[in-house]
Order: sequence, then C-alpha cells, then structure tokens
Amino acid sequence: MPESKYAIGLDYGTNSVRALIVDVTNGAEIASHVHDYESGEAGIILDPAAPHLARQNPADYLTGLESAVLGALAKARDAEGFRSVDIIGIGVDTTGSTPIPVDASGTPLSFRDEFKGNPNAMAWLWKDHTSVDEAEAITAAAAEQRPHYLAKCGGTYSSEWFWSKVWHCLRVDRAVFEAAASWVEFADWVPAVLAGNTDPAAITRSVCAAGHKAMYSNEWGGLPDAEFLSSLDPALGDLRGRLFEKAVPSDVPAGRLSADWATRLCLPPGIPICTGAFDAHHGAVGAGVAEGTLVKIIGTSTCDVAVWPSERPLADIPGVCGIVDGSVVPGMYGIEAGQSAVGDIFNWFVKVLCEGQGSLHEELTAQASRLRPGESGLLALDWNNGNRTILVDARLTGLLLGQTLRTTQAEVYRALIEATAFGARMILDRMEEYGVTVERVVNCGGIAEKNPMLMQIYADVTGRTMLISRSAQTCALGAAMFGAVCAGPESGGYATVQEAQAAMCGVKDTRYEPIPENQATYQELFELYRRLHDTFGIQGHSDALGDVMKRLLEIRARVVS
Amino acid sequence: MPESKYAIGLDYGTNSVRALIVDVTNGAEIASHVHDYESGEAGIILDPAAPHLARQNPADYLTGLESAVLGALAKARDAEGFRSVDIIGIGVDTTGSTPIPVDASGTPLSFRDEFKGNPNAMAWLWKDHTSVDEAEAITAAAAEQRPHYLAKCGGTYSSEWFWSKVWHCLRVDRAVFEAAASWVEFADWVPAVLAGNTDPAAITRSVCAAGHKAMYSNEWGGLPDAEFLSSLDPALGDLRGRLFEKAVPSDVPAGRLSADWATRLCLPPGIPICTGAFDAHHGAVGAGVAEGTLVKIIGTSTCDVAVWPSERPLADIPGVCGIVDGSVVPGMYGIEAGQSAVGDIFNWFVKVLCEGQGSLHEELTAQASRLRPGESGLLALDWNNGNRTILVDARLTGLLLGQTLRTTQAEVYRALIEATAFGARMILDRMEEYGVTVERVVNCGGIAEKNPMLMQIYADVTGRTMLISRSAQTCALGAAMFGAVCAGPESGGYATVQEAQAAMCGVKDTRYEPIPENQATYQELFELYRRLHDTFGIQGHSDALGDVMKRLLEIRARVVS
Repeated sequence: MPESKYAIGLDYGTNSVRALIVDVTNGAEIASHVHDYESGEAGIILDPAAPHLARQNPADYLTGLESAVLGALAKARDAEGFRSVDIIGIGVDTTGSTPIPVDASGTPLSFRDEFKGNPNAMAWLWKDHTSVDEAEAITAAAAEQRPHYLAKCGGTYSSEWFWSKVWHCLRVDRAVFEAAASWVEFADWVPAVLAGNTDPAAITRSVCAAGHKAMYSNEWGGLPDAEFLSSLDPALGDLRGRLFEKAVPSDVPAGRLSADWATRLCLPPGIPICTGAFDAHHGAVGAGVAEGTLVKIIGTSTCDVAVWPSERPLADIPGVCGIVDGSVVPGMYGIEAGQSAVGDIFNWFVKVLCEGQGSLHEELTAQASRLRPGESGLLALDWNNGNRTILVDARLTGLLLGQTLRTTQAEVYRALIEATAFGARMILDRMEEYGVTVERVVNCGGIAEKNPMLMQIYADVTGRTMLISRSAQTCALGAAMFGAVCAGPESGGYATVQEAQAAMCGVKDTRYEPIPENQATYQELFELYRRLHDTFGIQGHSDALGDVMKRLLEIRARVVS
Repeated sequence: MPESKYAIGLDYGTNSVRALIVDVTNGAEIASHVHDYESGEAGIILDPAAPHLARQNPADYLTGLESAVLGALAKARDAEGFRSVDIIGIGVDTTGSTPIPVDASGTPLSFRDEFKGNPNAMAWLWKDHTSVDEAEAITAAAAEQRPHYLAKCGGTYSSEWFWSKVWHCLRVDRAVFEAAASWVEFADWVPAVLAGNTDPAAITRSVCAAGHKAMYSNEWGGLPDAEFLSSLDPALGDLRGRLFEKAVPSDVPAGRLSADWATRLCLPPGIPICTGAFDAHHGAVGAGVAEGTLVKIIGTSTCDVAVWPSERPLADIPGVCGIVDGSVVPGMYGIEAGQSAVGDIFNWFVKVLCEGQGSLHEELTAQASRLRPGESGLLALDWNNGNRTILVDARLTGLLLGQTLRTTQAEVYRALIEATAFGARMILDRMEEYGVTVERVVNCGGIAEKNPMLMQIYADVTGRTMLISRSAQTCALGAAMFGAVCAGPESGGYATVQEAQAAMCGVKDTRYEPIPENQATYQELFELYRRLHDTFGIQGHSDALGDVMKRLLEIRARVVS
C-alpha cells in the first residue's frame, strides 16, 4: 500500500471554523476539529440599536485557525499511518462577501488602538444588511451607466456585497474609511496571513469573491472602472487603485506556509496554500459539481452551484446571483444561485409559530410523510426571508394558502417543504431556460442527510435524481482538494480539480428518483405555485398583486417607526 | 310597585336547549336552565362513513323542553315575587334549516318502529352537508327558470337549506320520503307540539324559516311553484301540496299551551305560544335590531342581521343570504348575512395549529393588544370555512400573507382577528351599497363580551360604533319578547316588537368608538384585503387567481379519494 498524502481544508463559517484533514489518495476524512468564535453572540458582533448590523472580530479568525488546526492534528495522530510531514497542501474557504478594512501592513483596523471595539473597523459579515440604500444606488447607477456589470450578477446588486459595504462605511464612518489602506475579503486575508505576507498590494485575490461580489470581470478589465465608482463617490474611485488588478481561481497558490505559522500550527513550513474562495463554492467542488451536476447546499438557506465550460457560449441568466469565470472550477464558469431561507423556514414554523422543541421536526416529518402530494390542499411561497433567486428581492414575504379549520401542523410543515422544492425548481428551470441543463443534483447539509421525505419531494417536484454528498463536510473537503491541486502531482496531489474530484469525493448509495405519480401531482401544484410566484413577485405583472407585500412592509415600517 | 309579568324564551341550539324566564316589564332575566341533548355526539347523530351527515333525534327536543323549562322554573321560584301563574307568553327559536319528515299526525318518522335509528327519518340539522349536489342543481335550475327565486337568497341556494335536504332524502331514501306526509321545520314543530296540534295541515309555519330557507315569498305566492319543483323531480312538485300555503312572523301566535303540556311543564294552560323562528333572528330582536342598527351574533361563525321597513323600496342585495319580509321584525324586511367562521378560526389557530390550551386565547390576546395596526406586516383572508357573504362560496380557503422568519403566534392571531373584521366590513359595505345604512352595530356572544381588543379592531376597521348587547342570552330573550308580544298589552305584554325592545333590551355601558389613527391604517390594509378578496374570490376576475383555491381543492379531493 502506497504511503498516503494529506491536505488540510479550512472552512470558516458564520459561527465557527473547521479544520479537516483528508487523505488525498481517497478522500478519507482523517480528523476534523471545530472552533467556535469567541466574540459577540456566537461570533457575531451585534448592535441592539442597529438591527441590520452584523460584524466579526478578525482576531477570532486567527485564534480559531490555530485552535482548529491543532485540534484536528491532535485527533489525526490517532489515525494509523498519519504523519504531519505528509501534509502537502492547505485550502481555505470563508463566508463572503465579508470585507475587512486593513492598514498598509494588511492588519485589520480593529486591531489598532484607535479603532478597538468600533464595528466599522471589523469584518463586515456577509449577513450585515446596513447597506441597503447603497445597494439600491449602485444598482440604479449601474443600470444607467454600466448595465453589463449587472447582467453578471442577476440584475441587482445586493446590500450583502463588497461595494455596498465599503460605500456605507465611507458614509457613516469616514475615519475608518480614510484609515483603510485597502479592503481585503476574509477569504483573501486568511491565506495571506498563513503565507506571512499581508501587504495589500501583494495579497492574492480570489476571483470567486471578486467576481461574485465586487463586479470584477476580465471582460471589462477587472474591477468596475474608476469613472463609474467616482460617480458613486470620488473616494470610491480613488480606493480602486488601492485594491487589486487581478483575481485568480483557487488552484493558484496564494503562497507557502510561513515559518512563523508553521511553528504555530506544528506543520512543516513551505506547504502551498491555495487562493481562498467562498465556502459554498469549495463545498460544490467537494460535492462533485460538474457539467450537468448541480450542487445544492441546504442549510438555513441554500446555495445552488453549477458550472459551465468557459470555452462554450453562456448567456447572462436573469435573476441568477452570479456567473464568474473560474469562481468554482478553474476553466469553467461558476454559476451561483440560492434560496434565502429553507431550514430557517422550517425552524421558524417549529420554534416560533408552534413554540415547539427541536424534536418537533422529527414528529412533523413522520406525520407529513404519511400525506400524499396535494392532500393538504395547501400551497405556500418560500419567501419568509425574501427571494434570492430568481426574483432577487429581499422585500418579499411568506404566503400560506388553502388552510381550513382542520389544517394540521404536519400539513403546514409539508407545505413549507414543498414550497422550498418549488423554489428550487424555479432555479433549475431558469438555468435550463438559458441552456445550463441539469441532469442530477447532489445535495449537502444536515437536512439533506436526515430528511428522506424532503429529498423525495425535491426529486418529485424537480423531476431530477437527488443524490447526497458522501462527505458531510463538503466545504472543508473542497478546500482540502484545492490544497491537493495546489500541491500538484509532483507532491502527491493532482493536476486538476476534476482529477481530485474523481479520487476524493462521491455520493452516498441512497438516491431519490422521481416517482411518476407524485411528479404528475406536483406538476399541477407547481403551475399554481408559479402563478402565485409571478403574481406576488413581479411588480406590474398582469395579475396585479405584485405590490401587496411591499405595501404591507411600507405600512409596517411606518407604524413601527 | 306593579306586579310583574313574565315570558319564557326557549332557544334550541345545536347542542342544547335553553329556557329563559324574563320579567316582561324590564327585561330582567329571572332564571335560565340549559339541557344538553342526549343522542349522538353532543346531540348530533354522525356517520363515520358519511362525514357530511349531521342529524338530530327529535325526541331530544321534547326531553329537553321539559327539562329546561322545569329547571328554569325551579330556579325562578327563588326570585322574589315570581309566580308561574304570571307567565303570559312563550317564544321559541331553533336552529335551521332543520327539517323533520313527519307522518300524517305530525309525528317524526324516526319515532316509528320501521324508521327507528334511520338518520334520514330524523331532523336534518342545519349543518348537514350531504345535499351539495342537490343545492347546485337547484341553483342551476332556478338561475335558468326562476332567477327571482335566487335574487332573494343571495344568488346561490345552499346545501344547508330545506329543498336541498328534502330532495336528497328523496334520492337516497325513497322509503322515508314516501312515508313523509309532510316536512316540518324544527322551529315550527316545537310550537305545534306545545299547542297540542301537530297535524301538518294545521301547523303554523314561520316566515323566517320558509323565507330564508325554502324560497317562500308573498311576491310569487308562497313556496316555489309546482312546475318548478316538478322540474327538479315530480315527487317534489307533488310534495308542495302537502306543505303549506302561508307562513307568518313570530308575533302571530302558533296556538296556546295545551292542557297536556301545561301539566308536564307545571304551567297554566292557554298561554299563547309565538310562531317559531331561527335563533339568530330572535337573537337580533333581543339585541335591539332596528333600522340603522345591525346586530352581529359572533360565535364560531357569525350571523349578521339588519332590518328595513317593508313599505320602503329595497333592492336585492347580491351575495346577502336572504331578504325576507317579516322574518325578524314584523312589518320589516329581515336581512341576513354572515361569516362562515370567526371564533372557529381563532380556535383552529390556538388548538390545532399551535396545539395550545384554551388559555392560549387570553395570552395571545394580551400580546396582540400591544401591536399596532399594520405592525405585523401580515394580512389574512377569513375563509378557512369558506365565505358565506358576499361570495357565497364554500369552496374557498384561508390565506395568510406577509410572514417572515420572526412572525409570532400573537401576530398571526391578531391578523386572523383583523381578517374577520375585514370580512365584517365587506358585509357592511355591501349592505350600504344597496341603501341599507348601518350607523351602529350591537354585538352578541362570548367573544364580543370578553375580547375588547377584537371589538376595538372591529370599530377601527368598520368605522362604526361597536356596542355589546346587555343580555348574554339574546336568542332566548328575543323569544321571550315575542312571547310578550303574542300575549299583547291586555295580558301585560306589548303590542309591537319595538315596544318590547324599548322595555326589555339594551346595551352595556362599554362602547367602542373608532380611533381615527387606527382607522386610517386599517383603511389601507382593507384596500389590500379587498384586492385579495376579489382576486382569489371571484372566478374570472382580471387578477386571474380566482381558481387557485378551487384547483387545490380539486387536486386534494382527487388524491384522497
């Protein structure tokens, strides 16, 4: 038996960081360790006076890095044949867009005394929604001046993204903005730290982060041009020169492990570190994303990732969050879509509306499993947290229809699951409409693994085979796979992502095939869903109800103000 | 102090009968007693194989009559100055349409050995829904042949009404139909029993029952003509001759207490007994219904009753359940409308959806009271049990819209209350549109008495003063008032219903006036409600969603069959 080589995948989530040590030869997961961030509430800095604010303390990222890697190594030492000198590569993924204002040395401003405790000097977490006004203004300006910028990100620039946040900082905290030599995405900062060079001009920047969140594209020479940015605010045009010219995929090494960090992590120095990317994108690679295979990462929300060969033509897909060359797999367009709430809706129903314990999920699933499609008479829209794809509208809300005096909890629970399945189908249909065919779907996440009823409903509603990723830690696995690719075959790694996927990832034996009878009923229900979707979701649609939810939100905002 | 006179009001509900002894001089309620029916489940004969079947054993009506009156008399004897010889009149109201097949002596067929235990030979309770097909056929036939029949009952003949039930019996149990010498409404049968003459040809028939449920009108000479009935089935045309020519209001005595029943009830013989009517109609009188004053009886569902002087022109009001001369107050049109579910929706939410105890109503009311109009961002349709007025469509279902991941139980609870208020306003608006102005609303029932938040919302949504009936037993009180009117001034009673009302009924001091600020917000919400109402409620409406709920029901019916 040949000696194994190993790679480390670092997966920075919203509340914790995971280190996973993987056997490069077969994808076996040797050991993993999770470290919870210390600051704020579950790692998130909140402000009761500003409910949309969500920041993180970048110091947590460093503490967590050390703790997670050392924890995983400690466990790995029990594995037969494992030696830390056989670790050949490190991959990193993080949440995003999570930009950090840094000084000229690449140090987060929040590390400096004058900005200590100032949330604007910390990492602006992906789910920070303080920048809604800026997002709207950017969308409006781009629609007028640079419509091609919007075409690649689904037609709407989001408050969760890079330029909205940076601009908002400029507007509300000029001191922080002016002290920032540059802004660095979380996903770019961690590899730079590991490589021992955080000089902003030297940091390797991820095309995944830049392309999906900062309107970067080779088509127009990188970041948005200075003229456009200056039209928003001259200070943004000026900032452009202090950011970066070029962004690259994760198969490009960001550097090699520095002596300092090698010592801190008990690893040999010089290990290649891949360019960072967002968690879902590495997760898609770890789940086996490929042409014809969509990966669905189902959690509180979902991220849907598909790829398409870069050399073949691909139209802009309206309403899809982003299409970026090399953002997932090098040499392919990465196509990202998603649903704003999936698990969150089920949790809301169980914990808030029913005031139940977590175990109610299992009870309701068992009861709902005995219902046939259409039996409840219910239909719901999955918009309790807005609609990310294909309407790209945070100002949409939920809808439940068809209840009688006998409608049960389990019926509503199933209707909510079905609503998320219909939402998933809307995304698939939109992709296929623009030529991106999807034959099978690989699902990741606890819900996919634990809820066969949900998976069967997804198969029946979408008419596709539903598969489950073999790994339960696809993000960290995908990061480790990029570590193996950065190491290359000469070190025992791989030349391409495809080779790494062939060796290191797979799906479980359980698969969910569409049941024709259920499919037929769900086809009828989906047609009704689609009418509700269009009528309530599209302003000016001929059904003319598209403003109802917005009017309610406006009234609500006014009376609570 | 002059000697008091008394009247007895008998109020036959769905599960029990109440006897109320009232001081005629001032409406003081001296004593009351409730008797629960013995048969079936809470008095209702059900059939697990036929979920729409709901019948009652007429024997329960007689046992209950004796028990309720004797129980009330026993309690009244404790009241100072009360003497049973001072009882001057008896009024009776019942549920309806609750027709009973009887033999030539007026004895219910279910009393005869050959039909014992046969539900078709019993009383067909108002809520029996076995006759949906017949109702549709009658509506279709009348629309073609006799559109004026439909105009008085809101445009749709219901499965809950007389001819649907009788025809259904003919179709499913010809033996019972052929053995029936006649069919008598519950409300007509009890007074006839008390008067000692149940010969079907001699029974005094209520214009309330006949007019609201059997398409009776003086305009076309009484019941539907034989030609029309024969077009449904010749046997129905034949039955017409064995029913009645004339129906009268409740101020016409149906007879005088027979010696036999006087003995059984420990009352003097010869007391006048008023012609029966439906509970809600006597309840409206007991609550003070008058021109400009609508009475709203709020329970599991609502019954809304208004009156209009017979000598003044009144157009047909589309979607209103019935307009019948003399059905509530003699000399006035009785106008009946209603909401299919009000308390039932709140109970469904608390008990079924939240799986809560009854006390959750109070908790949620307390929390919901702290919300301002519009604050929840929610909007609901109150159609969990269909829509009785103004859409007259049982095949409509509920809708809840606007929920987020933070929507609470209390917010939904309030939205459901608001939905019933919007439904109430739809009825008021429709009446006013056709000239029946409503300046104030007198509310009856436990919900109205116990839930000030609900009453304030009703005031704010409708823009009308909400009053609460002084009596908590308005149906029985109204029956007693008719007893006093039948007795007449010569016996210490009254010449007219208006005189009886002036002396015997009133409202509580608590009144709910519209709060302008809330009114303004609710006006905005109501406009949205109205759009949902029209879009989902009206087939072919330009918003084009009118078939969504029906499609769901059709699919549901198919997959569960």
